[in-house]
Amino acid sequence: MATTLTGVAASPGIAIAKAFRFANQSYTPQKQTAADAEAEAGRLRQAIEKAKGEIENIRRLTEQKLGAQKAEIFEAHLLLLEDPDLVDAVFDKIAGERLNAEYALYEVTSGVVEMLLELDNEMVRERAADVKDVSGRIMSHLTGKPYATLSGISEDTIILAEDLTPSDTAQLDLNYIRGFVTEIGSRTSHSAIMARSLELPAVVGAGTLPASIAEGMPVILDATEGRVFVDPPEQVLAEYREKKRQYDERRAELKRLAQQPSVTADGAHLELAANIGSIEDLTKVLENGADGVGLFRTEFLYMGRNSFPSEEEQHQTYKHVLEKLDGKRVVIRTLDIGGDKELPYLELPKESNPFLGLRALRLCLKREDLFRTQLRALLRASVHGRLNIMFPMIAVLSELREAKRVLEEEREKLEREGVPVSDSIEVGMMIEIPAAALGADHLAKEVDFFSIGTNDLIQYTMAADRMNESVAYLYQPYHPAILRLVDMVIKAANRAGIWTGMCGEMAGDPTAIPLLLGMGLNEFSMSAGSVLPARELVSRLSKTEWAALSEQALAMGTQEEVKQFVEQRSNL
Amino acid sequence: MATTLTGVAASPGIAIAKAFRFANQSYTPQKQTAADAEAEAGRLRQAIEKAKGEIENIRRLTEQKLGAQKAEIFEAHLLLLEDPDLVDAVFDKIAGERLNAEYALYEVTSGVVEMLLELDNEMVRERAADVKDVSGRIMSHLTGKPYATLSGISEDTIILAEDLTPSDTAQLDLNYIRGFVTEIGSRTSHSAIMARSLELPAVVGAGTLPASIAEGMPVILDATEGRVFVDPPEQVLAEYREKKRQYDERRAELKRLAQQPSVTADGAHLELAANIGSIEDLTKVLENGADGVGLFRTEFLYMGRNSFPSEEEQHQTYKHVLEKLDGKRVVIRTLDIGGDKELPYLELPKESNPFLGLRALRLCLKREDLFRTQLRALLRASVHGRLNIMFPMIAVLSELREAKRVLEEEREKLEREGVPVSDSIEVGMMIEIPAAALGADHLAKEVDFFSIGTNDLIQYTMAADRMNESVAYLYQPYHPAILRLVDMVIKAANRAGIWTGMCGEMAGDPTAIPLLLGMGLNEFSMSAGSVLPARELVSRLSKTEWAALSEQALAMGTQEEVKQFVEQRSNL
Repeated sequence: MATTLTGVAASPGIAIAKAFRFANQSYTPQKQTAADAEAEAGRLRQAIEKAKGEIENIRRLTEQKLGAQKAEIFEAHLLLLEDPDLVDAVFDKIAGERLNAEYALYEVTSGVVEMLLELDNEMVRERAADVKDVSGRIMSHLTGKPYATLSGISEDTIILAEDLTPSDTAQLDLNYIRGFVTEIGSRTSHSAIMARSLELPAVVGAGTLPASIAEGMPVILDATEGRVFVDPPEQVLAEYREKKRQYDERRAELKRLAQQPSVTADGAHLELAANIGSIEDLTKVLENGADGVGLFRTEFLYMGRNSFPSEEEQHQTYKHVLEKLDGKRVVIRTLDIGGDKELPYLELPKESNPFLGLRALRLCLKREDLFRTQLRALLRASVHGRLNIMFPMIAVLSELREAKRVLEEEREKLEREGVPVSDSIEVGMMIEIPAAALGADHLAKEVDFFSIGTNDLIQYTMAADRMNESVAYLYQPYHPAILRLVDMVIKAANRAGIWTGMCGEMAGDPTAIPLLLGMGLNEFSMSAGSVLPARELVSRLSKTEWAALSEQALAMGTQEEVKQFVEQRSNL
Repeated sequence: MATTLTGVAASPGIAIAKAFRFANQSYTPQKQTAADAEAEAGRLRQAIEKAKGEIENIRRLTEQKLGAQKAEIFEAHLLLLEDPDLVDAVFDKIAGERLNAEYALYEVTSGVVEMLLELDNEMVRERAADVKDVSGRIMSHLTGKPYATLSGISEDTIILAEDLTPSDTAQLDLNYIRGFVTEIGSRTSHSAIMARSLELPAVVGAGTLPASIAEGMPVILDATEGRVFVDPPEQVLAEYREKKRQYDERRAELKRLAQQPSVTADGAHLELAANIGSIEDLTKVLENGADGVGLFRTEFLYMGRNSFPSEEEQHQTYKHVLEKLDGKRVVIRTLDIGGDKELPYLELPKESNPFLGLRALRLCLKREDLFRTQLRALLRASVHGRLNIMFPMIAVLSELREAKRVLEEEREKLEREGVPVSDSIEVGMMIEIPAAALGADHLAKEVDFFSIGTNDLIQYTMAADRMNESVAYLYQPYHPAILRLVDMVIKAANRAGIWTGMCGEMAGDPTAIPLLLGMGLNEFSMSAGSVLPARELVSRLSKTEWAALSEQALAMGTQEEVKQFVEQRSNL
């Protein structure tokens, strides 16, 4: 019987293939009294050792296939195997309550998972998935039952699962797997991120999959719209075969735009740049012909490890990125941790509202040692390309001045040491706090460029945590309040003769692009996959026309009006 | 030897009297094995019963002396005596580990206190003080040692203590106690609030008190500047006797302004209103001659109890306030819980960033039952005075429209039921979210008034939690970014022909008042004690002159410039 599911379009594309239902084990062992607690502990120790070997293996394969950054998750898994809250607790339970290893493992890990899931926080929920994955693997060695794997699939398949763990996604054979559907998850969950990185169509958060879905049924996965058709009528299949053909054709067409400049219909030149989080992302940046890197999020250099990266390590990374971009602009943002991003080796006070706390540059100005190391690495790398240094989370002038003072001191030190530093580095700042947007006229006089970070700017302007589903209705990128701030920033930058970019999700959004173009935004930085559709869109738009239309949008009262207006006008 | 301490000026005034060092017990009992665990549990039960009787007694006395709201803290203490996390844990410890009651109590409560103190949250820290207070009282009954008390003081005294618990402050004899100094605490801690409420000069957060301070030493407490002089030289004593005389004289002068209207030097009339949190605050409102109530925080009706207040209970409170104000304007804000304010009987999901979460009107629109009860109570009370209803935490038009729709439905229902409702209620909203300030032109067309809530507006505009000390430097009320938002709001209101008030701390701040006056703010709502100094200040200011000066301030780049500018110009 035909079934239609809807969920979050996590990674675009259309796939048509056979259903494969994949069940992550949720095995509930019997509670037993252990005759010999020592022996149980020994069994557990062996199972952990075997799991460790396996994870190390997957880590290595992932690194070869997908690069070091994607493999980091497995380093986190290896650390979990040594986490006292987890492993020692299981040993204690065996010793203290004379339980069988299976049940002790089950009780401790399900308790931890439950506790993590209770917290309303996407990052922590991901952590729960990691604990499940690791404990499932240990359990498989205790019970001798194999840990379910996706590695044996050998025909065109769409996977349907509750969720896919990092181990699962590491084993996807892209020769046969055409896409996947999960019951839980959001655009930012691990499975969604992996899907985008693998360019695999995926719909996540589709809700409980009906039992009626049988192995081998035909499935249409429309991950452009977030819809899944299981066992659809022939007419729908035919329709989607045509849609898929058009979609694939359009993608091929777009690929041809990769070598073209970014120009509007009336001849205005723009920069359509890409956001990156690591060296591994560079391949896509170059493939998609981005005009530069508009945001390099350096915090990923600091994550998934046990100590701060050294100056030399950072220098090598920055140098590599600058060289790869071969003279195109690279905007590197200084460390943005705190908020929802923590480092295991940097103890920070717990905050009641971390998004409103000591994060990013605020933290760097308190921990100048970290900041100086990164700035030295950047300055040393500057001779290898076109470097722009960008400070995040500045609210007021004094912070900017302080950051620039530290940068200048490090530059002078390097020069005294005889280390060459480029004299054409541009120094800029993110505009992601309402105060910075409102004070942009003064800030503009003391930087070379602005880059508007819309994700944070929207959450602060609306006073709504962008990770909190209860207030998700307030995440309104096209709300005139947001547009007015953006407009203020661009106008202030124009008056001061500096350029303005945008590196939030909004910069790659087809509804926002016409307005931003009209307001005079110079640089749009987005995920690499959005660059070509944006270039195609921009080529059909007139900047002059949208300058007038954006004025009209700025005068509106609601996001709905703006959205409708842009959609109508874009289709003319 | 003369010693000078500095701390937070928590409650203004100058006092000169003898030192009294007051030590809250921190008694560490011996760990012993209980021969008879049953008997230990019995001793604990008895001690708790005695503590209960005592707390009930203090509660009753406090209610008589200071009103029901100030007594609520002791209801919280009584609830603590039944809290399973606390009391059951002690009983369990006695039974499970066969410990003496003293040690079991000590271990459990000090663990809880430590855990609470680790959280970077003022409200939670206050809770730790409550746990200490209650457990100290139980301990005194277990050990037979008296719980230290302040009730026996019989000469003019300034108290110096680590902190003062609710029990301590309830026992202060105002015939003799002239003020106090505490080592810990901030402007918003319990002791500070009590001091202001008792009009008792107090300096809190003065840091560790030196051991050299002896009982009976002369002390000068300058709680206008946050300074304390212990055993000062005669010259300083003489100087402060004169300062105190001038201070007391000025207060007496101000009292005479209570019957005067609020008018500027150039004849502009303003409303200088007061913020209240309960019926008990009304005495001060009337004593200080406020022009109305600019903010009634109704959440206090909901706090310190076990269930929602009924419609009738709320109606009685609103009616009482309206009647007492006798035709003066009363702005009642609908429920503002969530964020840092929780209700024990309303389970809400834990949020990673509660200040950016489901709070105030956002919650009311999800829990319409609560909202409707409050609106009915307000509408019914409207015939007893001049009622303004105000919605908090609105970001976008759709929220305002939704709130007004619910209000209208309840009005129609009451009218159908034949219940009289005033037809001159004004309906307005707080402007405390940047999006609302930026969209004020559209919002202004659909309300009768605005009231700017600066505490939240500043924290969102600066993206800095106002309770987080690490980012306290960003709480900048005079920053041009804030002033520009305020100016936008007032201009939008003027164009729409509605009035604008302000009910954050900024409204009573002598540095902000000239600027706000110049921008055209109509109503200033502040703590009752600030009304008369504000009336005196305003009478010396020219609105026309400050209209020009505030334009200059709006063009500045930093809070420091603005502050210096206002201070220079105010002294001309």
